[in-house]
Amino acid sequence: MTAPLQGVTHLGLDADDTLWHSENRFHETHQRYHALLSEHVDLGVDELERRMLETERRNLRLFGYGAKGFTLSLIETAIEVTGGAIPTAAISTILDFGKELLDHPVDLLDGVAEAIDGFRERGLSLILITKGDLWHQEAKVAASGIAERFDAVEIVAEKDVATYQAILDRHAIEPSTFCMIGNSVRSDVLPVLELGGKAVHIPYAFLWAHEAVDEPGSAHVTAHALTDVLDLLG
Amino acid sequence: MTAPLQGVTHLGLDADDTLWHSENRFHETHQRYHALLSEHVDLGVDELERRMLETERRNLRLFGYGAKGFTLSLIETAIEVTGGAIPTAAISTILDFGKELLDHPVDLLDGVAEAIDGFRERGLSLILITKGDLWHQEAKVAASGIAERFDAVEIVAEKDVATYQAILDRHAIEPSTFCMIGNSVRSDVLPVLELGGKAVHIPYAFLWAHEAVDEPGSAHVTAHALTDVLDLLG
Repeated sequence: MTAPLQGVTHLGLDADDTLWHSENRFHETHQRYHALLSEHVDLGVDELERRMLETERRNLRLFGYGAKGFTLSLIETAIEVTGGAIPTAAISTILDFGKELLDHPVDLLDGVAEAIDGFRERGLSLILITKGDLWHQEAKVAASGIAERFDAVEIVAEKDVATYQAILDRHAIEPSTFCMIGNSVRSDVLPVLELGGKAVHIPYAFLWAHEAVDEPGSAHVTAHALTDVLDLLG
Repeated sequence: MTAPLQGVTHLGLDADDTLWHSENRFHETHQRYHALLSEHVDLGVDELERRMLETERRNLRLFGYGAKGFTLSLIETAIEVTGGAIPTAAISTILDFGKELLDHPVDLLDGVAEAIDGFRERGLSLILITKGDLWHQEAKVAASGIAERFDAVEIVAEKDVATYQAILDRHAIEPSTFCMIGNSVRSDVLPVLELGGKAVHIPYAFLWAHEAVDEPGSAHVTAHALTDVLDLLG
């Protein structure tokens, strides 16, 4: 049987929730935010989550992705859902939530360093492709301890077809030899398949609601961990 | 007499306050912020400015550059200098200040489009090099109407020697053939001179205090407008 990734010479690797933990910190922040707001407004967790996501989506056009825009949206939601009754001390606490997200050490997922070394031993060219806040992503890449094992690092504002096309063009990569690996079907899988590339989806324990898709499709491979991808290369 | 930029084949162009207006909007926001806070705290403008800059500098390591981090720092300063007495309605107003900065149309400086066309007619390779928030900078580049006249766009987290070195390496540019043009001696001039490149400083009406340098040096050319650079090329 042909290995699913036979012929692949270039791997694109998502970073947040693929190489290192990220959404678990956001998940924890949501819980601390629920607890904080429950002292000032009588609103169920589901309704509060709905309002948070609504604010984030409304602000996405201006803020883009990342912890700073997330923090601004948390402050905005807190003022809105409490009708302005949230005390300034609680707003300071929300500012601290944001700083803790930005300042958190980088924790690699299990087996990541080993898998990266395995890819390199097989002669694959490795490109880290991550979206979000430029400053924070650069800080995480630097703190990861594995940056120098990549042939290139691409920090992008959005992961859509145009972005992947630009990356493939810049590195002169034939789409059929490229495989993207990541935790988001929306951002890491579908746009790459559309370009004629391959993709491996490795789900993470938490997924931001904005990244959810109704129709994940089946034209990609799903793996449990990055080390499993070694077996798919053939 | 030899033209100051003889032998230059590649131009790097800063964007904020070099191609389009930016700091004038921040300046205006500072003034609206002073007016807003004066209703809630008795603090002179100089002292308030000092506290704002102190907060921005303290947060720079985590926030980096750009309007979102600036807005978070404005909220933090407002809570601090009022001892928490700032009403939530005023915090909502500060959030709106931030959104207005992010949503403002791109206004090119006088003569920019003409100068860019002149550079292209002379066969120069043009690279737009801007630092700050990735999402916002991409939006401004797209809205500028002149993006396609550049050979490359580099949005970077910091403009230091390492960043310029990486850009020169990536584009295989010999430093002595490269000239950077921008409004900040700190970010656009000094690191490029250190690499053996050339630089033209075009001061803008307003300069963020963080960009100020004590010793601007004299190893670079100063011009009044981008169109003046055409005369320096020889």
